Amino acid sequence: MGNSFGKIFRISTFGESHGKALGVIIDGCPAGIAIDEAFIQAEMQRRKPGQSKITTQRKEEDEVQVLSGVFEGKSTGTPIGILIPNTDQKSKDYSHIAETYRPSHADFTYQEKYGIRDYRGGGRSSARETAARVAAGAIAKLFLRHYGIDIQAYVSQVGDLRLEKGYQDLDLSLTETNIVRCPEPETAEKMIALIDAVRKSRDTIGGVVDAVIRGVPTGVGEPVFDRLHATLGHAMLSINAVKGFEYGSGFEGVKMRGSAHNDAFIKERDKVTTTTNHSGGIQGGISNGLIFIFV
Amino acid sequence: MGNSFGKIFRISTFGESHGKALGVIIDGCPAGIAIDEAFIQAEMQRRKPGQSKITTQRKEEDEVQVLSGVFEGKSTGTPIGILIPNTDQKSKDYSHIAETYRPSHADFTYQEKYGIRDYRGGGRSSARETAARVAAGAIAKLFLRHYGIDIQAYVSQVGDLRLEKGYQDLDLSLTETNIVRCPEPETAEKMIALIDAVRKSRDTIGGVVDAVIRGVPTGVGEPVFDRLHATLGHAMLSINAVKGFEYGSGFEGVKMRGSAHNDAFIKERDKVTTTTNHSGGIQGGISNGLIFIFV
Amino acid sequence: MGNSFGKIFRISTFGESHGKALGVIIDGCPAGIAIDEAFIQAEMQRRKPGQSKITTQRKEEDEVQVLSGVFEGKSTGTPIGILIPNTDQKSKDYSHIAETYRPSHADFTYQEKYGIRDYRGGGRSSARETAARVAAGAIAKLFLRHYGIDIQAYVSQVGDLRLEKGYQDLDLSLTETNIVRCPEPETAEKMIALIDAVRKSRDTIGGVVDAVIRGVPTGVGEPVFDRLHATLGHAMLSINAVKGFEYGSGFEGVKMRGSAHNDAFIKERDKVTTTTNHSGGIQGGISNGLIFIFV
Amino acid sequence: MGNSFGKIFRISTFGESHGKALGVIIDGCPAGIAIDEAFIQAEMQRRKPGQSKITTQRKEEDEVQVLSGVFEGKSTGTPIGILIPNTDQKSKDYSHIAETYRPSHADFTYQEKYGIRDYRGGGRSSARETAARVAAGAIAKLFLRHYGIDIQAYVSQVGDLRLEKGYQDLDLSLTETNIVRCPEPETAEKMIALIDAVRKSRDTIGGVVDAVIRGVPTGVGEPVFDRLHATLGHAMLSINAVKGFEYGSGFEGVKMRGSAHNDAFIKERDKVTTTTNHSGGIQGGISNGLIFIFV
Repeated sequence: MGNSFGKIFRISTFGESHGKALGVIIDGCPAGIAIDEAFIQAEMQRRKPGQSKITTQRKEEDEVQVLSGVFEGKSTGTPIGILIPNTDQKSKDYSHIAETYRPSHADFTYQEKYGIRDYRGGGRSSARETAARVAAGAIAKLFLRHYGIDIQAYVSQVGDLRLEKGYQDLDLSLTETNIVRCPEPETAEKMIALIDAVRKSRDTIGGVVDAVIRGVPTGVGEPVFDRLHATLGHAMLSINAVKGFEYGSGFEGVKMRGSAHNDAFIKERDKVTTTTNHSGGIQGGISNGLIFIFV
Repeated sequence: MGNSFGKIFRISTFGESHGKALGVIIDGCPAGIAIDEAFIQAEMQRRKPGQSKITTQRKEEDEVQVLSGVFEGKSTGTPIGILIPNTDQKSKDYSHIAETYRPSHADFTYQEKYGIRDYRGGGRSSARETAARVAAGAIAKLFLRHYGIDIQAYVSQVGDLRLEKGYQDLDLSLTETNIVRCPEPETAEKMIALIDAVRKSRDTIGGVVDAVIRGVPTGVGEPVFDRLHATLGHAMLSINAVKGFEYGSGFEGVKMRGSAHNDAFIKERDKVTTTTNHSGGIQGGISNGLIFIFV
Repeated sequence: MGNSFGKIFRISTFGESHGKALGVIIDGCPAGIAIDEAFIQAEMQRRKPGQSKITTQRKEEDEVQVLSGVFEGKSTGTPIGILIPNTDQKSKDYSHIAETYRPSHADFTYQEKYGIRDYRGGGRSSARETAARVAAGAIAKLFLRHYGIDIQAYVSQVGDLRLEKGYQDLDLSLTETNIVRCPEPETAEKMIALIDAVRKSRDTIGGVVDAVIRGVPTGVGEPVFDRLHATLGHAMLSINAVKGFEYGSGFEGVKMRGSAHNDAFIKERDKVTTTTNHSGGIQGGISNGLIFIFV
Repeated sequence: MGNSFGKIFRISTFGESHGKALGVIIDGCPAGIAIDEAFIQAEMQRRKPGQSKITTQRKEEDEVQVLSGVFEGKSTGTPIGILIPNTDQKSKDYSHIAETYRPSHADFTYQEKYGIRDYRGGGRSSARETAARVAAGAIAKLFLRHYGIDIQAYVSQVGDLRLEKGYQDLDLSLTETNIVRCPEPETAEKMIALIDAVRKSRDTIGGVVDAVIRGVPTGVGEPVFDRLHATLGHAMLSINAVKGFEYGSGFEGVKMRGSAHNDAFIKERDKVTTTTNHSGGIQGGISNGLIFIFV
């Protein structure tokens, strides 16, 4: 029973790769937020596979239907139900999976856990499940905008190709200008070439996504177990195929001395801030008002 | 409100560094488990600072008192209440903190969040809080033993010093033979020398802990949000000063091609297993019966 | 955020009276249960208003769509998503409510809490919301059948008309033979006549529903806060317009002496049972294997 | 696993009748509340059995120890740990229970559920468990006072003796003037005489407690499942030996016509209120700002 996430803004999702539909209930969205359906749809488009030669070619027409919780364009505080019908259900494509376990896929573990599985396209374990997350995330973005909170993610590594610059030295507005979503155009081109080459050799390759959150007020995070980065890590690690999570200086920080790594507090125009941000905007599991970064 | 963790075996903790006591309630421990108080006490000893020259010198006599949930030496299924009185409460040591924010500590964020803070030794944000976790962890270990599940952690990196071998090539029984708890004696000595040198220059340095869990049955983990590694990552990231979490091949896996990285399924003496374990014993968020590894 | 219920078998619902659809996600239904869609539809029919002259005349064609969690007729252990489109959305019928607060209705409290409300037919506070509960309840019944657990409810009181007999002395199989669902045909007729008369005077009247659950094994219920009857009371009190809950002897038991009220344990053919059942099948919040009764 | 209650102000309790201690962790108490330990102790005294001839004669010296979450007299927002040592542990008194099941007690169900039980004085199922609730309730009262919310309970019925007047016509300040805590002195005397007589015949008798909550703001309660009265009913039904819960007009309301029962809204000095309060201060599961009553 793990298909819900969140304590204040809580999402519950359902749906398999080749079932009739996916969906999500959002419980806890405050009342009075303008729900811009075109924005939700645009977010779905960004996620959509088959947009370019470097991703899976499956065509998904993800038409989002908002079924409840919105009245005259605004959220009412009641649960928002969202439906995403599956239109591309050529399930025979996958019939060969019924009797084999694909390497590193969830076919075996689902079979063991439940004694039965919807083998069409991986069923519930398919990355298609994230469509419901994107729809819910779009609502979250609309809500966070009200508080001036902005989330920006970008690809920082593909295989051996890694951005050397940190977020402070990058122009993140360039992220959406290329199909691999790397804010440094030169590196982006190399990444695309690499993926293309790997693809031609009928292989796959992984990557790293960095995210920067701006505008988080101080005081967010609930120690000791629901520290901000622990809850966020939980969410990130729950995404298909994610193998690790770090924030601030992360694993790199291990090599630094405490004297260099610690973020000293200073007063800047009557506001407390720090000279560096190795803590990634979090101390003791609570946001400190700085920019929040994680990988 | 984040002082509880777990859904089936749930712990709730309380206590500050220099308050009267720390404690934990364990709700959900099955009935009939032999509760060996000497073992719990031994686990507390392992955690205790001041054991060697390389750690903080604070003396903590962590005498654990089991107050409920155990009858005639066995758990009864009712909540187990555990108390750890604080005996070393020289709070004047810390009085200077009342008016400053220590670099990278939680002094500032607690003050911002709550408008008040127990500044003595970091209060609730002190690493002393983990004493309650160790006590609860000892009960968990007693319980997991019944199922043949064994957890072994060890230090794999301090600063730049890193174990090159993986867990398969190490003799983990050597872990407790040295004060830095690294299973390779030679590297352990180097690590101790490094920490000692850093300490003498009045500085600090970080490290990496690897953990290996053996005996986990197939089917553990609740997709899609409570995948086994997501829940475990949440727990690990909630420990003081942890900056990252990875499992299986982790961030290293990014550099590998899918063909090399994927764990192929084979049948070995009527049992399904895999030729490699880059997935760290988890597929689709559910355990596959192999050894489970994380950093 | 109160649109989910349950810890093992958890339902989350959405939908307003005059929105596009209602729906429910069931998380935690075990795998391998035969999901009989005709049965779910039949349960919806039983709930449907407008079946007889004594209820509201709204027509609801509650066509249930099972969208996920079922494969080849059986539950897969993944969340079951159910959709119930609203077909009778004549929202102008209710437009006059936009500016008034109906007596004893939730118009005022929703407006106060959320600052906005979907006034069409009561929106989320409409009894129409229970359609999603009935669909989820149908799945629960299919699942409980496997364990031989059977739930039977009936109307025991309308206004002053009250069944004098207890469940032991009634033939509950007669419950569905009349439109008021009272298992005593004579009393049922009187109830129908009373409702009809009240209705003709453009008024309404309340009632009491008794329920009997058979086949509950011993050991169900989680003291101290989630005692079986406390959790069940929570669920029952969450239904529109329910004003009270009692179990076993309930408020009547107050008048009895302990010596008469207490259920003495006896051994009957190697099985422990009790001579009476004033406890309603629950002691200390845990089921005792007897028939479980509540009002 | 049912030893926690509450979502914002959450309590977790432990402890058996004849164990070493009972205790509670309160997670979510806001920071900055003055924690008056003398008040907590006074609340414990009110609960204490053996105060008068009409209750059980067990002597309990319930000395409350506040172990954490309070600094310089104020709550810090971190969990408040409270310990109540058991001092009267004459467990041999109860040794005969080890092999019998007391009528209507939880001996049998605990044995069935857990396969083991602490039989001394009922163990966890003893009413002694409520001591931890009273301590937590005292903290809650201190917190609610800040918001001008006041809770007043009183005994309205013992056996057949029932107060005829409603709370509006009673002087609730007289409640604590007699040992049975009935605000009508004459009826109180009769109740005491009845209990005394029943007691002399070595029997017991039940009662009904009414409660009135004043000062609840509008908007409290989370439909659809966590309606205010459903959550409150859950809490009340979780108390030892409680068999029923009703609010507002409760079961009596069944006999009334809707036209008489419904609370019409009026405007009184620019404030919306109702002419009657059959809804008990709740509509659609959300408080309406009126006095909240339940039984």
